[in-house]
Amino acid sequence: MKKVAVIGLGLIGGSLALELKKHTWATIYGIDNNPEHLDKALELGIIFEKADMNIVKDVDVVIISVPVNVIPQITLEVLDMIGEDTLVFDVGSTKAEVCHAVKDHPNRKNFVAIHPIAGTEFSGPEAAIYDLFSGKVNIICERELSSEKMIDRAVDLFEIIKMRNVFMKSAKQHDKHIAYVSHLSHISSFMLGKTVLEIEKDEKSIFNMAGSGFASTVRLAKSNPVTWTPIFLQNKKYILRSLDEYIKNLKEFREEIENENKKEVYETMEKTNRIKKVLEGIK
Amino acid sequence: MKKVAVIGLGLIGGSLALELKKHTWATIYGIDNNPEHLDKALELGIIFEKADMNIVKDVDVVIISVPVNVIPQITLEVLDMIGEDTLVFDVGSTKAEVCHAVKDHPNRKNFVAIHPIAGTEFSGPEAAIYDLFSGKVNIICERELSSEKMIDRAVDLFEIIKMRNVFMKSAKQHDKHIAYVSHLSHISSFMLGKTVLEIEKDEKSIFNMAGSGFASTVRLAKSNPVTWTPIFLQNKKYILRSLDEYIKNLKEFREEIENENKKEVYETMEKTNRIKKVLEGIK
Repeated sequence: MKKVAVIGLGLIGGSLALELKKHTWATIYGIDNNPEHLDKALELGIIFEKADMNIVKDVDVVIISVPVNVIPQITLEVLDMIGEDTLVFDVGSTKAEVCHAVKDHPNRKNFVAIHPIAGTEFSGPEAAIYDLFSGKVNIICERELSSEKMIDRAVDLFEIIKMRNVFMKSAKQHDKHIAYVSHLSHISSFMLGKTVLEIEKDEKSIFNMAGSGFASTVRLAKSNPVTWTPIFLQNKKYILRSLDEYIKNLKEFREEIENENKKEVYETMEKTNRIKKVLEGIK
Repeated sequence: MKKVAVIGLGLIGGSLALELKKHTWATIYGIDNNPEHLDKALELGIIFEKADMNIVKDVDVVIISVPVNVIPQITLEVLDMIGEDTLVFDVGSTKAEVCHAVKDHPNRKNFVAIHPIAGTEFSGPEAAIYDLFSGKVNIICERELSSEKMIDRAVDLFEIIKMRNVFMKSAKQHDKHIAYVSHLSHISSFMLGKTVLEIEKDEKSIFNMAGSGFASTVRLAKSNPVTWTPIFLQNKKYILRSLDEYIKNLKEFREEIENENKKEVYETMEKTNRIKKVLEGIK
């Protein structure tokens, strides 16, 4: 791996560039439709050189790290241009739509559908950090539609940055699961932030009383709407399903509190404490 | 301050005992209706000696750190027994009910209604830690109903453990605000945990995909139901109000996603990003 093109130099693209530069000495070419991002990435040493789409003809790896609504179109464009030995992967938080878009492309075998489960609530090239991925899970979907060689190269690449690769057969299954364990958390956090900001209009002192618990629960409400709006719209089907279950659970718990059903309120929380075990493995 | 009785040796009582021992060399007497907690607190060096309620006749400070449903009754019992120079305070997450219970007690002036905004998701004496309170806010309610001397002593005590004291006139106002910035966060987190555990029954691999965002948002779902059941029931009025607003916001956002109102979804998140500034001051 000598030359890598990164399309989209935000939190994920920028952090991947930093890691690859550090661990593989690859030359990183940056592409971004925001010239300020491109300048910033160059200034921060994230990329070696600013480039345009033509560079993808001439690199070993193309990483597509743009908002999910534009991933399918850009991926098709890249697959049209690459040589036969180029690995192409996207890192979007939804996988069904990009997989559907590329399924009949003659270069489908060069594409690997990837979702590294890592991030922070920050965005843009300034948010790019080292060690974002270390110890975390990298999902690879539809393995059998990529060539073995490309899968091997993707696996190696994510092992180099210390991720644990996990294969999921179906992109739809990925999107369903991720709706629950990632997208729903973002919505619950955004709506918590919204609710508290609304009451705060009339109650100026309220944030004096906010502690670390609130900060933790509302952290994801700092996330970038440019990233998350297309994710919510693209994964609408499973997000609505998870949201409906979440709202149903909230309403039921609300009724238990209203009726002062001490036992039910207690038992619901006690059962949910099982989440402790589940979280043990998560950094 | 030579002798301090701590009633209830969990996360908050135990951590306060550790701090006071460290900073003031006070002798800490422990009271807890769970003999295992008492033994553990002694073993961990949190308390100097196990004691019973009679000790409160003979100490300078009594700290009441038990679940909020028993705080009013224990506080009355303590106020019945103390000498005229003893400071008594509770540290419960609700303030209206205890303030109402003690309002006509002859020793009301010895009592200070306190809520240190600090905690973790863990519980019991093993959860007691140093530096839990440092840099955080300590709320003092109904200042004018305590004697000036007792207020001064409480202020000093919390300054010693490096908290920032904030006065709130009304206990009800405290309970309303804290419903939004603390209690609601716990419910949103518990229900998120419940929703994801439910889907996980059928989808074994789901937690493979959980990242740090999910872990942060669901952290409070590890909290102790013994502590939180009585808080939710006691602060029912304001919790139901905050929950209704939260559910309303979730439903509205759900509709925007369903109707693919890109602009509204985006703007709702962008406006809520203002929480960044608000959170800056919170550790």
